[in-house]
Amino acid sequence: MKIILDAMGGDNAPDANIKGAVNAINKVKAEVVLVGKEEVIRGKIKEFYGKEIEEISARLKIKNATETIEMEDVPTMAIKHKKDSSMVVGFRMLKEDKGDVFISAGNSGALLTGATLIVGRIKGIDRPALAGILPAYHSQLLLIDAGSNTNCKPINLLQFAQMSSIYLRNTFGIEHPAIGLLNIGTEETKGNDLVRESYQLLKEKSKELDINFVGNVEGRDAFSGKIDAIVTDGFTGNVFLKTTEGLGKFVKISMKESFMKNILSKILAIPSLPAIKRFSKMMDYKSYGGALFLGVKKPVVKAHGSSDELLFEYTIKQAEKFVENKAVDKMIEEFQKEQKQHD
Amino acid sequence: MKIILDAMGGDNAPDANIKGAVNAINKVKAEVVLVGKEEVIRGKIKEFYGKEIEEISARLKIKNATETIEMEDVPTMAIKHKKDSSMVVGFRMLKEDKGDVFISAGNSGALLTGATLIVGRIKGIDRPALAGILPAYHSQLLLIDAGSNTNCKPINLLQFAQMSSIYLRNTFGIEHPAIGLLNIGTEETKGNDLVRESYQLLKEKSKELDINFVGNVEGRDAFSGKIDAIVTDGFTGNVFLKTTEGLGKFVKISMKESFMKNILSKILAIPSLPAIKRFSKMMDYKSYGGALFLGVKKPVVKAHGSSDELLFEYTIKQAEKFVENKAVDKMIEEFQKEQKQHD
Repeated sequence: MKIILDAMGGDNAPDANIKGAVNAINKVKAEVVLVGKEEVIRGKIKEFYGKEIEEISARLKIKNATETIEMEDVPTMAIKHKKDSSMVVGFRMLKEDKGDVFISAGNSGALLTGATLIVGRIKGIDRPALAGILPAYHSQLLLIDAGSNTNCKPINLLQFAQMSSIYLRNTFGIEHPAIGLLNIGTEETKGNDLVRESYQLLKEKSKELDINFVGNVEGRDAFSGKIDAIVTDGFTGNVFLKTTEGLGKFVKISMKESFMKNILSKILAIPSLPAIKRFSKMMDYKSYGGALFLGVKKPVVKAHGSSDELLFEYTIKQAEKFVENKAVDKMIEEFQKEQKQHD
Repeated sequence: MKIILDAMGGDNAPDANIKGAVNAINKVKAEVVLVGKEEVIRGKIKEFYGKEIEEISARLKIKNATETIEMEDVPTMAIKHKKDSSMVVGFRMLKEDKGDVFISAGNSGALLTGATLIVGRIKGIDRPALAGILPAYHSQLLLIDAGSNTNCKPINLLQFAQMSSIYLRNTFGIEHPAIGLLNIGTEETKGNDLVRESYQLLKEKSKELDINFVGNVEGRDAFSGKIDAIVTDGFTGNVFLKTTEGLGKFVKISMKESFMKNILSKILAIPSLPAIKRFSKMMDYKSYGGALFLGVKKPVVKAHGSSDELLFEYTIKQAEKFVENKAVDKMIEEFQKEQKQHD
């Protein structure tokens, strides 16, 4: 197996990307290929470890790419014109079977455009979408679209529901995953135009497409553990994702301050340290790692934009699992089956 | 002062509304008028307290209204046709100066429609919006629109920014409140069409309108305490609000389980109970109470849809403060000043 890592994407690139790859290399079986400016990567490895990359591991490689797609770049333009960017070169390797999965922490819009234009969509899917995993009560919550399609149509949301059903069934072993539509009320009449129309479409098609559609779900019930996936457009989904992250951060700081208010409360907190740690770990939303692009012909993983070296390490290990689980192959199979039924 | 309370709106109506009013009556100086089916209210009070309403307090009153607006009702139709509903009767009392503030936990859309059609907008404001208060790091965060206008235009978001500036300055004493636009990235190019256009409009007009516009803000930074208000459309805002609420609930349960995992951790947690309580209280998003409709000529407060008696009591006390602070009068003054400058 070969994992392709965009060395230049993300807020802490390339340092965190390189260190994450070095940390991960002895914990995965796959090769890891760092895509980016070769001399920069070589220089950084020398600086951080006092060694050549070849001395670190025979499974750690570099693929040279001289350009970088920035957060400010307009996605379509960047993918079309920056032919030698780390992202485009990485996507091309994936397409040409020179790797099994591509990871990037770069511009989400460019990542979606590249995945669609270079790697290609699965037949039957109009818009691939980011599927992120969040913690929920004694379980997890799949959020789709977590941030790639900022303007969506009802048909897109229907396909997001279908893809998440297949993904949860095949990869998480959930027989009839409960799929909800993110809304601001549970009644059919609630929501903006997109959500109201999507509700009707989901209601009409869910039986035929084998989706266990449970109706509108409000954010307040999303973490109850009763919902397996929550479907929404990429703008709302990303707001949802980052709000949970921001609140998680606030919760951790506030808890620390509650317990560390004064010397007495600090001393009194000592016996509870294991419980505090257990809870803090769960609230660390970052550690839930990368999101998979569902609907693309090969595995593309979006790493958190502000990934540090630990999170890159975690995402590389996670990407290896995605490939082992054959999540994407199974998605292609199911859509082929469906197409045949229609022929 | 007279507080008008919709006795029939909300998930737990009329029981929670009535009990909340009875609990609040000895904690406020104002009269509280319960609007709803008189015989039902009288019967409930007899059932709960074994007394007539007159025996509870001379400041607790009933205004009869025979109809109820349901959550499923289409807002405009409900306000136009259910003339004798508790909501319409309440609004009419407010308009006719038979009360100083109107509280309802009912259908948000109907509440916005009623506030606009019956009470009327402040001159210069196209769409009133719900301003909710959330906890943030060592401070609070104003969220506008928290859920009333599900489809918005850039001019609405500009006015939300302006109203929240005035409100925070006059009511919270924040000299130059930092106003952010809720987005999925900090760059100008990020977001859906509405947000990108609103960004440009805010950038262009903020100096003239005395708005301290700090640019795009992601959910992950919303609770940092550096932002005083976050501006968004009512759909996204309500998702934001309910997501924080859902996560807050999940946090409380998860923390409890972390500490109560087994007998040992339970015993070890005892010394930390004050810290746990302090933290739990902060995470109880419900206790942040009602949201004020900014842009309406008189104070209208939206109580939480699933308010229980405690929350109604809290919201009644909060409404008294809104009136005392003259938040709405100050808003009208500032917009009048601005209109004059334009003349």
